[in-house]
Amino acid sequence: MTDTIISSASREVIIGFERPFTIIGERINPTGRKLLAAEMQAGDFSRVEADALAQVAAGAHVLDVNAGIPMADEPALLARAVRLVQSLTDTPLSIDSSVVDALEAGLEAYEGKALLNSVTGEEERLERVLPLVKKHGAAVVAICNDDSGISTDIDTRFKVAEKIVHRAADHGIPACDVVVDPLVMPVGAMAGAPRRALTLIRRLREELKVNTTCGASNVSFGLPNRGGLNSTFISMAIGAGLTSAITNPLVKELMQAVRGADVMLNKDPQCMNWIQAYREAAAGDRSGGRRRRRSKKT
Amino acid sequence: MTDTIISSASREVIIGFERPFTIIGERINPTGRKLLAAEMQAGDFSRVEADALAQVAAGAHVLDVNAGIPMADEPALLARAVRLVQSLTDTPLSIDSSVVDALEAGLEAYEGKALLNSVTGEEERLERVLPLVKKHGAAVVAICNDDSGISTDIDTRFKVAEKIVHRAADHGIPACDVVVDPLVMPVGAMAGAPRRALTLIRRLREELKVNTTCGASNVSFGLPNRGGLNSTFISMAIGAGLTSAITNPLVKELMQAVRGADVMLNKDPQCMNWIQAYREAAAGDRSGGRRRRRSKKT
Repeated sequence: MTDTIISSASREVIIGFERPFTIIGERINPTGRKLLAAEMQAGDFSRVEADALAQVAAGAHVLDVNAGIPMADEPALLARAVRLVQSLTDTPLSIDSSVVDALEAGLEAYEGKALLNSVTGEEERLERVLPLVKKHGAAVVAICNDDSGISTDIDTRFKVAEKIVHRAADHGIPACDVVVDPLVMPVGAMAGAPRRALTLIRRLREELKVNTTCGASNVSFGLPNRGGLNSTFISMAIGAGLTSAITNPLVKELMQAVRGADVMLNKDPQCMNWIQAYREAAAGDRSGGRRRRRSKKT
Repeated sequence: MTDTIISSASREVIIGFERPFTIIGERINPTGRKLLAAEMQAGDFSRVEADALAQVAAGAHVLDVNAGIPMADEPALLARAVRLVQSLTDTPLSIDSSVVDALEAGLEAYEGKALLNSVTGEEERLERVLPLVKKHGAAVVAICNDDSGISTDIDTRFKVAEKIVHRAADHGIPACDVVVDPLVMPVGAMAGAPRRALTLIRRLREELKVNTTCGASNVSFGLPNRGGLNSTFISMAIGAGLTSAITNPLVKELMQAVRGADVMLNKDPQCMNWIQAYREAAAGDRSGGRRRRRSKKT
């Protein structure tokens, strides 16, 4: 049983094997959002505010904050976004950047124990990011690629994860503060990718005994009815041992799958969260089933 | 890798570890359907016809046929239903009764290799049903309860399954012709039941190496938004190794989960079934996701 504690100044969230599934809201990210990028660069953070509040209202447990805008002063923007979101909500943050200076600026602006997103198995990145994680007492997302790229081989990816966990230990960071992302590729491009990812998630949990996270919507890229595919994938991934996901909590179908998986794994006592979320739908329910049919008259 | 072959006079369906998931349509069953029961008893099988055709159109691979009406001549009714359904479709049948004489009458009326539903670990039932399975060259659903009842202990249920598989072998029935039902209880009544069922499904596949089936909608009995819970459960169960389910193929949400799971486990080459089922929905899709967002402009 592994618990990863993340906190804000006043609130704690635990990612863990025997905890309800953790949703890390992905919306505060200008990548591919031209308007948000332009606004942030011009100093208008109103959309960041709105995205933070909407995601918390929708059930996000942690908010990812990314300010990756080409040619911008990313450290300053990320620090500002981190300070702003902290002033709006006590939801703990994931500080997200591919630029190490921005990660550092974000950590300095943050009060609490952040989830730092991310380190990889690349040597330079390991040796720059892990000291920051240690210095600030953070937890870190570890992505299963290294200097040789993203392997399609599960054993290789597992070894990258293992290497990051061992290197973190060398820096004084316990394994429970490393949350591994197995990397889930689009099934439309690589038919065997999700199945391999499910196997890797299980191995990361059973053998390496770490918490895991992933982007839960990449898998359906390019296919119709993405919500349907994403819900099925996340249900299967949680069944395989996934303990958190970086995703959009505003997608109702996905949140339903996550809540349903909590019920199935006995992480929603008396099904109270489920009932609270869906009791209004009960009257019009048409989901069928053997036992249900007993009250029908056809 | 285990394949269970079921057939009609002219068509074969394979339940198997590396095959697309098998849907066994549950609708032809008067249990709890008062009108259907009254009609069948009065000799009107028009609803049986309609249910058969609708389920095949909705994607059922096998049709379960049950004629369990209290005080009726169940063997005669079941034989008639089996003959009728065979005349309408080449979809193979599952012959379903708790009455051994009815199972026998159904088998005698059937051309092909039926799935007989079911045997349990109860001594008397084993010794009456298995000879029928052998005589008719059928496959059989094995339910994980015995003379001591339905155990809540996974090891006990596993041992019941093992006992049935061994006893079947004594009767000359190979393990590949035994499809085990782990018994999934409602989560509202037993909070730990689905999680234990998922563990049992994995053990049945990895240790006993048998195909599995279950009623996929009992799990949500008494809760709101049953379709949502059932979809999540079946996704998780398929991820754990479930290879077939006795369920209602007319429930769109459940069929979506099954098709999605086939995609995720690389059992839908080039995602063709998925695309065919959902391409019309593509234009209006709102399922979100990181990559998708790159084409949005907010």
